[in-house]
Formats: sequence, structure tokens, C-alpha cells
Amino acid sequence: MKNFISVKDVHDIEALIAQGLEYKKDPRKDESLGRNKRIGLMFFNPSMRTRLSTQLAAKNLGMDPIVLNAGSEGWTLEFTDGAIMNGTTVEHIKDAAPILGAYFDILCVRTFPKLQSQAEDESDHVIQSFIKYAKIPIVSLESATRHPLQSLADLITMTETFREKRKPKVVLTWAPHIKPIPHCVANSFTEWTQAWNQADFVVTAPKGYELSTQFTTGVQFSTDQAAALEGADYVYVKNWSSVHEYGKILGDHSDWMLTEKHLRHAPNAKVMHCLPLRRNVELSDEILDGPRSLLTQMAMNRVWSAQSVLSEILKGL
Amino acid sequence: MKNFISVKDVHDIEALIAQGLEYKKDPRKDESLGRNKRIGLMFFNPSMRTRLSTQLAAKNLGMDPIVLNAGSEGWTLEFTDGAIMNGTTVEHIKDAAPILGAYFDILCVRTFPKLQSQAEDESDHVIQSFIKYAKIPIVSLESATRHPLQSLADLITMTETFREKRKPKVVLTWAPHIKPIPHCVANSFTEWTQAWNQADFVVTAPKGYELSTQFTTGVQFSTDQAAALEGADYVYVKNWSSVHEYGKILGDHSDWMLTEKHLRHAPNAKVMHCLPLRRNVELSDEILDGPRSLLTQMAMNRVWSAQSVLSEILKGL
Amino acid sequence: MKNFISVKDVHDIEALIAQGLEYKKDPRKDESLGRNKRIGLMFFNPSMRTRLSTQLAAKNLGMDPIVLNAGSEGWTLEFTDGAIMNGTTVEHIKDAAPILGAYFDILCVRTFPKLQSQAEDESDHVIQSFIKYAKIPIVSLESATRHPLQSLADLITMTETFREKRKPKVVLTWAPHIKPIPHCVANSFTEWTQAWNQADFVVTAPKGYELSTQFTTGVQFSTDQAAALEGADYVYVKNWSSVHEYGKILGDHSDWMLTEKHLRHAPNAKVMHCLPLRRNVELSDEILDGPRSLLTQMAMNRVWSAQSVLSEILKGL
Repeated sequence: MKNFISVKDVHDIEALIAQGLEYKKDPRKDESLGRNKRIGLMFFNPSMRTRLSTQLAAKNLGMDPIVLNAGSEGWTLEFTDGAIMNGTTVEHIKDAAPILGAYFDILCVRTFPKLQSQAEDESDHVIQSFIKYAKIPIVSLESATRHPLQSLADLITMTETFREKRKPKVVLTWAPHIKPIPHCVANSFTEWTQAWNQADFVVTAPKGYELSTQFTTGVQFSTDQAAALEGADYVYVKNWSSVHEYGKILGDHSDWMLTEKHLRHAPNAKVMHCLPLRRNVELSDEILDGPRSLLTQMAMNRVWSAQSVLSEILKGL
Repeated sequence: MKNFISVKDVHDIEALIAQGLEYKKDPRKDESLGRNKRIGLMFFNPSMRTRLSTQLAAKNLGMDPIVLNAGSEGWTLEFTDGAIMNGTTVEHIKDAAPILGAYFDILCVRTFPKLQSQAEDESDHVIQSFIKYAKIPIVSLESATRHPLQSLADLITMTETFREKRKPKVVLTWAPHIKPIPHCVANSFTEWTQAWNQADFVVTAPKGYELSTQFTTGVQFSTDQAAALEGADYVYVKNWSSVHEYGKILGDHSDWMLTEKHLRHAPNAKVMHCLPLRRNVELSDEILDGPRSLLTQMAMNRVWSAQSVLSEILKGL
Repeated sequence: MKNFISVKDVHDIEALIAQGLEYKKDPRKDESLGRNKRIGLMFFNPSMRTRLSTQLAAKNLGMDPIVLNAGSEGWTLEFTDGAIMNGTTVEHIKDAAPILGAYFDILCVRTFPKLQSQAEDESDHVIQSFIKYAKIPIVSLESATRHPLQSLADLITMTETFREKRKPKVVLTWAPHIKPIPHCVANSFTEWTQAWNQADFVVTAPKGYELSTQFTTGVQFSTDQAAALEGADYVYVKNWSSVHEYGKILGDHSDWMLTEKHLRHAPNAKVMHCLPLRRNVELSDEILDGPRSLLTQMAMNRVWSAQSVLSEILKGL
């Protein structure tokens, strides 16, 4: 594996999941794989699970990660080619990235979209610039459009919890939020679940919240949340802002907050969310504190997701 | 030892002190004790000595600490049960703590009181929430009410410097400050010195600055600073805001700043302070730069204090 | 080597360069040299290359650096002797530094000048206070007046790229900027190139931008940029604010921005800059993206510069 940005970077999803589950059983089985390899973690945005789980994964593989809070600890970066830099940016990605590429063997980058321009966000210019100029493997710790380490952890979680012969019914349901939220987790979960091809998958959201078509080809979509949830085995709860009215909230849909009542026709449904989460806005306490919740397990699986990915990249160095 | 929050968590204070002094002689004697154990350090507030000494202690025991600046690097946490999270908090402690509990074997947490409500602060809800939800050993790096690693370092410092057969006279004296300051260090020093039972102990402060009764049962208190200081062997200097008029400063007591003149009847008194310290407000230059000061020694002993505590916790894992 | 603040701390520049180049060939050849040694990196100001390269150098020598963001993570320091600390500073360097000196074997410090008072900045009081009070080797990661690790990397870069028998012509040319910038890199490059004595060296800048005389004794200075650049082998591009009108920008000199046209009489000139860099303000895209640029190589050599210095200091412990 060269970079890890989207599911398209993965040759064999099932093998990547299986390797993650092996690391879960024996975290240090490959602790010499990363010996003398340098890994950098660069954060343009806050992070708790991703920050910690990726460090733990790197350490399990024998690496000693260096973390940089870009912006607060480093310099504000410019990404526009040909820019006359007489404004607020202090260093161009064309100058910074090659150096990071020389310092490290693997560079992990976290960056959020601005939610102002769909074209700009979907160009994923920050992470693409690092790929272009650093010339070493780049691992997305969430980009403007995707959160692939989360999606891999999600598949790991479904794989280890589903015990039946049939395919599970997996529902991605939009949830309310008080602020406009990126589409990354929803895009990524959709893309990975489709590529995985091991689930009956449906996305449900209020009208106007359809995801960008580049992630939804062939995906079933419904604005009828109740119908979509019926008989679900996994319900992935996530807010995202509108794509069509880009980055906007389209009115009050507080009745979309998932409660036990919403799951009355899905008695076995397990509930998923990537966290952080606003309780009693996106999801009710009763579900979060009850037996349906897979949230801690999902977050724990972030370590094995990252470790499986870093392992593949190390093997390719 | 399960958690380390207050002196009540300690089975044998003298043994903990003695172990700290052994580590001081031979810092790496137990460097395999923490092998393959994961320790996280989470800071809700600034810290220099605690941040560095705890990392050094963990490294001496063979662990590789991961530090997280909660808030600036992570997400703002909600602590109220049942909260409808439509405000500024992004993640509930009920969701965050179990994950930290899954990532780490030991979690160290630093959090300050708000000094707005005595009941809220004395509930120590941040550190208690971590104990409740993380379900792994929690070490206080200073909480809303106590600073136990400091107090243990204080006892280590008195133990290694007092050479006489009798009990030392130990005085905790209130000092002026320009801002309302938490009671943690004063509470904790009082609690530990009482439990230690190896000193003649007196607390002196201006009227209105009596500490909370839960820390002062059986402790001698005087508003007469001159009398209290007479013949002292150790003078612990510390500001704290009022408990009775909670979190307030009660007028000008600049004459309480400790100077040589205050110690004219305590020729052998050594002076202690946990740092950081406002020179010539809390304590005079003449004392700080003279032979009475134990401040650097105390700060250095923070390493051995932390190492002794982490060692006990590791043995109990 | 005791401290590393200026070129005066170096006994043998050529040997230090040679050692850096040996580490470049074999980064881990001395990986047991720093075993069980503690190194702290303290940042009062932002940094990317220095922060990362010094950590990498320390790790290559078997040390496990602890990084502290002074200010945001720690406490605001007071540097004035005898200060009555009733203002915004929370801790005195006289109290903080001895503790850092007790915690670490080597302390690296990054601090910028305020550019308000030449006397204050040239006293380099922050770094000098650490030397005075920490009493362990202090390594400058850039101070108010100098950036010696950068200068050593610059000499390493010229040494490894110059293949002719004669001395190279080296030109330090002032470049425009939108903000008042410290003199450190220019001072340091001048001081090191002079002491190295392996180049024909000239500094060129607009009238009013002469560097402080303590760094320029015996150095050729010209306000005629075109004449200075003629036949140059190395052109070091750097902005600095005025010394005479201390910390000021003296009007528009945008024509000093280095472009290919400026180098039409220096066909073999290689271009250097310490980064971060404002493209198309200090230096044109055409040069930065062309074959003249040594910028990435210089930044990479920061690792070997730091490693050579830390190695010398470790040998002296």
C-alpha cells in the first residue's frame, strides 16, 4: 500500500480487516516491523481517538511517532500554486512537504474541510498536496472528504460482532446537530461499505441531505427513516450538513435523533457512531447507555485499524 | 494501589516515601516494571513540573507516556449526566473515558477547580468521572481539591532533610497573591501531614482563610502568623482563596508575604513552596535565593514521588 | 562542548561539519551515546524544522526527547531580577530553570526577540538566563540574536555541494518581507561564514539594513545587490528588519526579491534560505522550483547539524 486516503488504496479489504483482528489478539506480534522507521503525525485540527490510537498503533509496530500540531506549534501553510505570499500564510506546502518527506518514512495528516466550497473541499487539496510534494506514503487521519481509518474500524467492528450466515442490514442514518458538520465519515462509511459488499446497505436522511454522488453510486437512499431502520442489524448514526446547499443546515429535524422508539422494529440493531457525539441531540442516552451501543468497541478498534494500515505501508517501504 | 487521588489511597505512607528515596538513588532499578504498559497523561490545565516529572517517572519505569492536552488538542468535555448537548461541549465524559480506559493501562489527569461553587469543586467531578467511567487506575496530577503527588514529594523532602530525633515543627502559612488560587496544595499538604503523623503541624492564615473542614479535622489553626512561625523547622508557603466566601480574596494581607524578618524566631526553618511562585508577592527574594529554600529539591523530588506511585500502581495491575 | 549558542562555542568547525556528514551517511552509528540521558526541548515560539530535526537527531543518538511548549502548556516566565511579580508572569526563570536543570542532562531552548529594544534583544537574556540558572548544557534552537543550528546546517550544505578547489563566493542578500523579522539567521550566517573562513563572503542589503557591528567585523558589505551577486556560487536569501531604526521596515524594496533576472551574472549560483519563506515576496517561484534551490537539502541537513552538536555535548557530559 502506497497511500491510505480512500478505500481505492486498498487491494484486499477482507485481508486488512483480518489483519486488524489479528493485531487485536496479539498487539505486539510485529513489533520489529517498524524498527528504525520514522513516522510523523500532523494535526491541522483537534483529535482525540485518532491522535491516540494512531500513536498506539505505531508504537505497537515498533515506531516512535513524532506529533506536530500544525498551526499552533508550526507555521500557517499556503496551498495555492503561484501565490504571492503577502498575507497570513507563512510557508508554502511546496516548501514544507518535501522536508517532512525527508524527515519521515510515513506521514499521517489530519485536516478538516472549510465547508465553504464543495469544489474546494472535494479536491481534498491539503492531503493531495502532501501526496504530491512529500513523496512518501501519506495516511489520512481524516481529510476534507473522507475518514478511512474510521471506516476500516467500522468494518472490523461489524465483522467481529455479526454471527449469522446472511448479510447484515446496515443503515446509515442522518442525525441532527447544532452546527454544520463535514461529510467525511458519512462519505467514507458509504464508500467502504459498498466496496466491502458484505451488507445490505441503505442511507437515510431528510430531503436535501443526499450525499455527494461520487460516494453514492449504486447505494440505496431513502428519506423514510422508519422504513429504512426496519430490521436493521447495524445503525450508523451521523450528522452531516447539506451537500446541495453546501455546508448548510436545512431546518429543524430534531425528530431524526435516534431513540429506542425509532428502533422498535429493529430489536437486534446495534448502534454505531464515530464520536465525538452530542448526547440527546444526535443520539439518546437510553441507547448510548444500553446494550445496543458499539461505540467504545469501535473506538478501541481504531488502534487495530491504524495498525493494520501502517503494517501494510511498512511492508511496502 | 488502585487509584491515587488522596492520601486515603495509600496503605503505607512511610513505605511510599522510602521507595521514592530508593528511586532517587537508582532511578532505573525497575525499568522493566512498566514494560508494554501504556500510560496516558491528560492535561485540562497548564503544568510544567507535573508534566515533566511524571513523564520522567514513567520513562524510568520503562513506559512511554502519551500526553494529550485536552481542550486545545482534543474535544471539550461534558460532565453533566443527562445533558442535552446543544451548547459548547462536544463530547461526554461517559463516552470519552471508557475509550481512554481501553487505550491505556494507567491514566493521569490534571484538572483545576473553577472556584465558583464549593460544592461543585469539592465533588471533584472531573477526576471522579474518570474513575467511574475509565475503569482503569487514575492518578491525579492535581484535581479540583488535591495535589497528592506534590504532597508526597513534600514528605520525601522533609524526610531526607530532617536529621534530629524529635518531630519537626511544620507550619503551613498562607501567603498573599494577586489572583484567587485553588485550595488543592494546602488541602493536600494538610491531609498528608496529618496522616503521616511525624510532625507537629500548624496552619496559619488570616481570619476568613480557614480551609475546608474535611481537610482540617484535628489540625491546629492560628491567625497569629508570628506565633505559629516561632521555632518552625519547615515553613510551607502557599496562597489560597477563601473557602467561606468561596473563591474570593478578602482584602489586603501583603504583610503575610514571608520574609527573613518573619523567620527571626525560626533560625533553622527551611522554606517550602510547590511552585509556580510569584516572587516578592508570596515570598521574598532574600529567602528564595538564600540557604533556607528547599524549592528546587522539592521539585526534583516530584520525579521520585511520581515514580513511587506509578510503581505501586504497576504492581497492582 | 558545554553550550551551543554561537560559533564561539565551537572548537573545530570543520570537524563538526565532517561529523554531521558522517551522521548523514550512518544516522544510527552512535545510537548508544545518549543512552539514559534526558533531553528537553522548550519552545517559546513556533517551529517546524527545528522542532522535528532536533527530535530526530536526539532519537538517532538514543535519547527520548521531551518537548514542552512554554507558555501554552507551561507557565509565563519572568526574567527580571528583583521583579515584584504582581503582573502577568507566573514563574521566575530563577525558580524554573534550576528545576529543568535537575530534570534534564541537556536543555534546548527556542526563543525569539521582541524587536522593541536592541539592547534587550542583544543581551539574549532568555537563553543567557537558562545558562546561568539551569547549569546544564543549553542548546539554542534559535535565540534573540542567533540561529546556530541553522548556520551549521548551511555550512554542511555548502561543504557537500561545492566541488571546486577555489573558495566559493558566498553572498548573503537581504530580501523583502511584509513584517519586521529578527536578525538571528543573518547574524548567525555571517558569524559562522566568517569563522569558517572558507568563502569569499559579502553581505548586501539596502542602505539602513546594515547588521549589528558585533557580527560584521571584517565582513564586506555593499548596498549594490547586482554587483554583489555577480559570479556568486551561493546566494543566501533572507529578510531582516533594520538595526539602526531598530525593528523597523524602511520603505519599499520589493525589487530586492531574488529572481532569475538577478542571477543572470551568476549562472552557477545555488540559492539558500532557512525557511519558512514567503514565495514571490522574498524569492520567486522560478528559482524555488528550479535547479538552483538547496532549500530541502538545507532543511534535511538540520538533522545532521543537530546530531553533530548533541553528540559533542554528550561526549562532554
